[in-house]
Amino acid sequence: MLTVYSDDHHLHHGRCELIDGQLMPCFEMPSRADHVLARVQQQSLGPVRKPEDFGLEPIRRVHDEAYLDFFKGAWDRWAEQGRDGDLLPFTWPARTLRQVIPKSLHGELGYYSFDGGAPITAGTWQAAYSAAQVALTAQAEIQRGARGAFALCRPPGHHAASDLMGGYCYLNNAAIAAQAFLDQGHEKVAILDVDYHHGNGTQSIFYGRSDVLFTSIHGHPEAEFPFFLGYADELGEGAGEGFNFNYPLAAGSAWEQWSAALEQACGEIERYAPDVLVISLGVDTFKDDPISRFKLDSPDYLRMGERIARLGKPTLFVMEGGYAVEEIGINAVNVLEGFQYAQ
Amino acid sequence: MLTVYSDDHHLHHGRCELIDGQLMPCFEMPSRADHVLARVQQQSLGPVRKPEDFGLEPIRRVHDEAYLDFFKGAWDRWAEQGRDGDLLPFTWPARTLRQVIPKSLHGELGYYSFDGGAPITAGTWQAAYSAAQVALTAQAEIQRGARGAFALCRPPGHHAASDLMGGYCYLNNAAIAAQAFLDQGHEKVAILDVDYHHGNGTQSIFYGRSDVLFTSIHGHPEAEFPFFLGYADELGEGAGEGFNFNYPLAAGSAWEQWSAALEQACGEIERYAPDVLVISLGVDTFKDDPISRFKLDSPDYLRMGERIARLGKPTLFVMEGGYAVEEIGINAVNVLEGFQYAQ
Repeated sequence: MLTVYSDDHHLHHGRCELIDGQLMPCFEMPSRADHVLARVQQQSLGPVRKPEDFGLEPIRRVHDEAYLDFFKGAWDRWAEQGRDGDLLPFTWPARTLRQVIPKSLHGELGYYSFDGGAPITAGTWQAAYSAAQVALTAQAEIQRGARGAFALCRPPGHHAASDLMGGYCYLNNAAIAAQAFLDQGHEKVAILDVDYHHGNGTQSIFYGRSDVLFTSIHGHPEAEFPFFLGYADELGEGAGEGFNFNYPLAAGSAWEQWSAALEQACGEIERYAPDVLVISLGVDTFKDDPISRFKLDSPDYLRMGERIARLGKPTLFVMEGGYAVEEIGINAVNVLEGFQYAQ
Repeated sequence: MLTVYSDDHHLHHGRCELIDGQLMPCFEMPSRADHVLARVQQQSLGPVRKPEDFGLEPIRRVHDEAYLDFFKGAWDRWAEQGRDGDLLPFTWPARTLRQVIPKSLHGELGYYSFDGGAPITAGTWQAAYSAAQVALTAQAEIQRGARGAFALCRPPGHHAASDLMGGYCYLNNAAIAAQAFLDQGHEKVAILDVDYHHGNGTQSIFYGRSDVLFTSIHGHPEAEFPFFLGYADELGEGAGEGFNFNYPLAAGSAWEQWSAALEQACGEIERYAPDVLVISLGVDTFKDDPISRFKLDSPDYLRMGERIARLGKPTLFVMEGGYAVEEIGINAVNVLEGFQYAQ
């Protein structure tokens, strides 16, 4: 299986995020992708290629133009103020406040974000742009007929909505790739998001549409980030009604509970009969993940890949979360190997 | 003029706030109120009295019950997790996310806040509760016939909405006092908010009502916190249409520009002909304020008090912001003296 990878992810190394009431060193760090790449190579999963550059157009198909302009220019505006620390938002247009776009950097940043966990650094735009190209290059491999491909994206993307960053995410790599499939002639794309955290950005992007089925298995948002989306009663709206399925699980869930939810999600995907499948591949479901509370073990990821393979669809894997740095490579590549070697 | 003051404000001393992309020591600190109290005493403004306890009922008239329950219990839930740092929110129900109330502490905190500037500490609830009692006690003094009274509240209140904390504010002292006037038989209350920052919480509480006129002079929200409310086109809605007036001014505005806006606000107040007047008294309009950008000088605050006196209404002054700690006492008491000694 082809892996697409860009060194540009090293350009994004946030110093701190606001989590659990404290500014902490970022859990989402460059070594995450380095560990996955090393494991891909160690296991001889297949070739590793740099991304092609498809430009901004396929990103614009998913993200708001003004949001992209803001994100691209934010660091320079910050630097012009003589600042060099991470740029973090600090106020948000919550209810009772208006959805207006202020002119100041901090006002705009608040408008375009939903948490304090997505710091903008000097290299964040380039890293996120390259991650989107990684996803698009792996998508092109599927488009050319491959059975599977792995987009080793970093930063991750599934929390990013059309015009919102948050949860370590800036550009929604999985959504950009899904849209590219549609724009290149496919009619139905299914997304299965297996990250511990609900893929609120992806859901919101496709919530009103029937050409993308979104399914997600995740920690219950009553108790887990992103808190405000990912409940089981979110089934899509308008033309998208019946094309969104969430499987929130309780803290402590292990493979037994998780795989039961996977069966349900796979059932919906089979009924939908998509042309292609996109996996938002987070491995923060691992028992030792420092910010998550599921109990999957490394061999479970092989079985996850095998079950996905049985769906029998061309499958694009897009890297999302996973923060137990030592094991992230083993677990992510286990999914890919489980898929690759399944009959 | 009576000053009402409670030492309980010392119970709230946040270690840090998220501002301009950094966790900084809180600008909103206990010495602020200490300086104002010292100046009140130095100038022999009048007696200083502790607050009476009017209980939760007058607070519930303005704030959501579930919000109050959450705020009151938040610190204990945090401490039960073995934490002792300030409790700060880190994710918010922005657009595309749902207005659901999660069950976890951090989820609820995100739901009930709109920025990273209102840390909850062990003593925050008690300090905020006492500040509301300070406002209510000064309000009672007016109710008994006084021409003026000063509620030396800390923490401040004008950014707090019915169920949202933010901007150093938790309970909206001015709104609670305004509602108490109405509940005690008055028919029309005018609020004049002279803090550098728009009083978004107060505006939102009374936006649909005609029994409270809200007027505010402040830094333009295009460029200044709270960014998402305080624009000139916000005129009230429903029964409240025509009872909300914002005067956003550009950075660098001095007394000339500021007093012109004050004239306009006073014109609206005169037309409204309220029974009583509540002043949200922030003095962060001062030229040396560390987080604001107006250019008022200390003698201007005397003139501000004189102009307010010419409205000829029983007037309750409620302390809000002001962060140039050395001068906050001089400037706040200048307003009160300007009012007190005006004919």
